[in-house]
Amino acid sequence: MTTQPGAILDLGFTERLSQVRASIEKRLDELLSESRNERDLVALAMRESTLAPGKRMRPILLILIADGLGHRSNCALDLGCAVELIHAASLVLDDMPCMDNASLRRGRPTVHLKFGEDVAILTAVALLSRAFGVIASISELAPSIRTQLVELAANAVGMKGLVSGQFQDLRDGQRSRSPEQIALTNNLKTGVLFGAIVDMAWLISNSDERVRAVLQNFALELGQAFQMYDDLCDNCPDSGKDQGKDVGKSTFVSIYGVDKVREQLYTHLANAERNLRQVFDDADMIAGFMAMVFKKATITR
Amino acid sequence: MTTQPGAILDLGFTERLSQVRASIEKRLDELLSESRNERDLVALAMRESTLAPGKRMRPILLILIADGLGHRSNCALDLGCAVELIHAASLVLDDMPCMDNASLRRGRPTVHLKFGEDVAILTAVALLSRAFGVIASISELAPSIRTQLVELAANAVGMKGLVSGQFQDLRDGQRSRSPEQIALTNNLKTGVLFGAIVDMAWLISNSDERVRAVLQNFALELGQAFQMYDDLCDNCPDSGKDQGKDVGKSTFVSIYGVDKVREQLYTHLANAERNLRQVFDDADMIAGFMAMVFKKATITR
Repeated sequence: MTTQPGAILDLGFTERLSQVRASIEKRLDELLSESRNERDLVALAMRESTLAPGKRMRPILLILIADGLGHRSNCALDLGCAVELIHAASLVLDDMPCMDNASLRRGRPTVHLKFGEDVAILTAVALLSRAFGVIASISELAPSIRTQLVELAANAVGMKGLVSGQFQDLRDGQRSRSPEQIALTNNLKTGVLFGAIVDMAWLISNSDERVRAVLQNFALELGQAFQMYDDLCDNCPDSGKDQGKDVGKSTFVSIYGVDKVREQLYTHLANAERNLRQVFDDADMIAGFMAMVFKKATITR
Repeated sequence: MTTQPGAILDLGFTERLSQVRASIEKRLDELLSESRNERDLVALAMRESTLAPGKRMRPILLILIADGLGHRSNCALDLGCAVELIHAASLVLDDMPCMDNASLRRGRPTVHLKFGEDVAILTAVALLSRAFGVIASISELAPSIRTQLVELAANAVGMKGLVSGQFQDLRDGQRSRSPEQIALTNNLKTGVLFGAIVDMAWLISNSDERVRAVLQNFALELGQAFQMYDDLCDNCPDSGKDQGKDVGKSTFVSIYGVDKVREQLYTHLANAERNLRQVFDDADMIAGFMAMVFKKATITR
């Protein structure tokens, strides 16, 4: 491992962040090394879709929060990478012709365009299975913690999370929706997985229930902020994704307009940070990372 | 639960089998009861695809083998149902237009035809997640057993199992293949999940290593037999599936012809049964169930 437990606390922001980032990239590569078979397109697509440059927001948050809660082992790294595998699987499927029909992701052609729809589906299934397998086999954690982590991940993916969010978005997104409905869908699409991430960090750190509740509020605010960020970036030329996919879709931007949504995003981010600072004496690292991630959406164009 | 632990040993074959079957149907219904939301098509498709009449070969085998190994709780039922959820997910995806493009499954329109391709994909993802969640939460089992069971399931689904088998079949099935290549693909498509099932039964029964190896041979033989059965039934009008999907595909039937394959199927079944009888003093129940399942393929037409 590049990062020694605890060592990231002694470095400056940029250096610490790039250490965490490098450890994630290395571990993702290792976790997918069994699939390093050039003849096998599914193996290739698993690696390409996951290892393509991404923000790594989910694993970074999981690692930083676990670190902040006093967790001192590399379990958070494996857990964060498992969540990133789940996230990569969801992106591969969201891009399919029968879903968002996207052609560009992380600046590259989408998996179904490059490898075929059959490979895209099998890639997502293989990534999901790998994620559950990774979580179940983190040997430094007590098995009773690991089973709870598997349950957390299963709930975040299934009918209480990503699957429901994507379904609501596909089927109701083209109709007129109330702000409450949009917020609910956004929470399922993004917030629930953030919720699972903070719960995972909390579980492996053996922290108290009060901390869990505050971190859940943080995740909820962050999820809403992130979906607004995503909507605001629908026309960003440097997003690495297709532009203008939201045209005709009912989003907060279509209801309230760009300026109001940017204002709401600020509010959600501020609320998220307030929750963070209730838990951590020093939340500067996580707050700094959030500011960095959301920077693009908060610049007025 | 309908079946009391151990009680199935005291009944006649037909009665015992229908008790096991009823307990599986009831438990599958319970496990999917949270998805009983008529407005939610994914929830509906999860229930319809899983609860449609099926052979329930995988859960029945798991329950009977665990029972034979002296396991006396209902864990095998939950585990068997989790495997059935995985199996149902794989069928939904295999039927998709970009895979086998099937219109009929278990006598009903395939999920993508009835609900749309997007719903089909989300249904499979939700079923897979539910399966992992169910395994992780079988409270009667020690967490250290549960984590091993999650790993077994993850491997059986991913690059070492179903995903690889389906990929090889899709991409190589239309080319000329050697019998060895066909056997390898068939093992990945069917045998690996059977292997996971016997390993699961073995794990929860706390049996010795020798038993595990013999049961693995049983699973290997059964997997080969089952894929031959599937190929032989490609033209059965009562299969509940599209007929003639294998036309132009390289299978054992296309290489050796129906009679030779039926002969090989007999051999694999006999080998499977011999392995069974090495483990169990009384293997009549499982052997009887296998004979029943394979009956259709062994009748000369």
